[in-house]
Amino acid sequence: MMYHINLLLFDQFELLDAFGPAEIFGKAPEIFTLHYYSRHGGVIKSAQDTQILTEIYASQPQHTNILLLPGGEGTRQLVQRADDINDIKRLAEEADYVLSVCTGAALLAKAGVLDGKRATTNKRAFEWVKSQRSAVDWVKRARWVKDDKYYTSSGITAGMDMSLGFINDIVSPEKAREISKRIEYIWHEDSSEDPFADLYEG
Amino acid sequence: MMYHINLLLFDQFELLDAFGPAEIFGKAPEIFTLHYYSRHGGVIKSAQDTQILTEIYASQPQHTNILLLPGGEGTRQLVQRADDINDIKRLAEEADYVLSVCTGAALLAKAGVLDGKRATTNKRAFEWVKSQRSAVDWVKRARWVKDDKYYTSSGITAGMDMSLGFINDIVSPEKAREISKRIEYIWHEDSSEDPFADLYEG
Repeated sequence: MMYHINLLLFDQFELLDAFGPAEIFGKAPEIFTLHYYSRHGGVIKSAQDTQILTEIYASQPQHTNILLLPGGEGTRQLVQRADDINDIKRLAEEADYVLSVCTGAALLAKAGVLDGKRATTNKRAFEWVKSQRSAVDWVKRARWVKDDKYYTSSGITAGMDMSLGFINDIVSPEKAREISKRIEYIWHEDSSEDPFADLYEG
Repeated sequence: MMYHINLLLFDQFELLDAFGPAEIFGKAPEIFTLHYYSRHGGVIKSAQDTQILTEIYASQPQHTNILLLPGGEGTRQLVQRADDINDIKRLAEEADYVLSVCTGAALLAKAGVLDGKRATTNKRAFEWVKSQRSAVDWVKRARWVKDDKYYTSSGITAGMDMSLGFINDIVSPEKAREISKRIEYIWHEDSSEDPFADLYEG
């Protein structure tokens, strides 16, 4: 089975939120195909001034589809744009799995697709993300959280741990460990261990 | 003082080799400015099919210049191209500091700028990289190695530990720790600790 990893990029997205997971999924090309999308296609600029070429994200007929949403400063504008949020709602509902990194969870929350579900996000921006939607069961201490088809991670590098956790769940623990070794990444396998939660405690 | 981080990209570079460090340096924009270069400018495609817009890398009049070389499959072609290697030699000699990640060290070795210096690289490709130049003092077990103005790291994610180590050295330990917390990265501060060296031991 081929899984399609559909990265939805937007201006001022956080570089590693998208490309940490892309590095991981890209190490198993026999399983995962990567696509770089944006709402209007063309050049998207990360918060680090990296310019990425993207395609327009229309409906994807393929299966299995995995929507991957990075976070970053750009989410502050996106949550205020009804057209973008409606698109994200539709794409998330169509997808077989949805993964968000850092404040990417704010986009899903705003779209209403996390209502009644457990989810996490960057602890540094926790209060802002929470303020987008109170109907979400926000988890304060977690490296990442899985609920149904939704995987949400804490800040930036936590997206790499979540991606390996996702591969652990849908492919195998062996594949997740093999990839972490290939990229010389010390995988933090325990999703509930969150060494950064206390840093931003009220 | 403003440091210019000049990432030299090429087709089939390894995504995280370049963008792990870019994420880290990008978190201190008051100190570091990021530039994305390639030999001929235009679109460069990573091994993960990410398409990045780059500028042509001419001589840089600014100081302080930091040349950053990722590794990846593309290095296998580059070491065979005299024009590319001559360029890398000139750019490395001009730079105030040179950082390589993974098999990026093969490019520096081939260019002769590591002769008589200690350096490391990906342990998985260790024999191939060594075969590029015997005059380098290759270090088999290290997360990263500093010798004079050259910093070389082990595979892929090790480039993130090296980048934080570099910031530790030229800015301050506090700045390195602050950035690692901001990106929720568990920094492996000890450059000699290399949990992946044994995996590929003959």
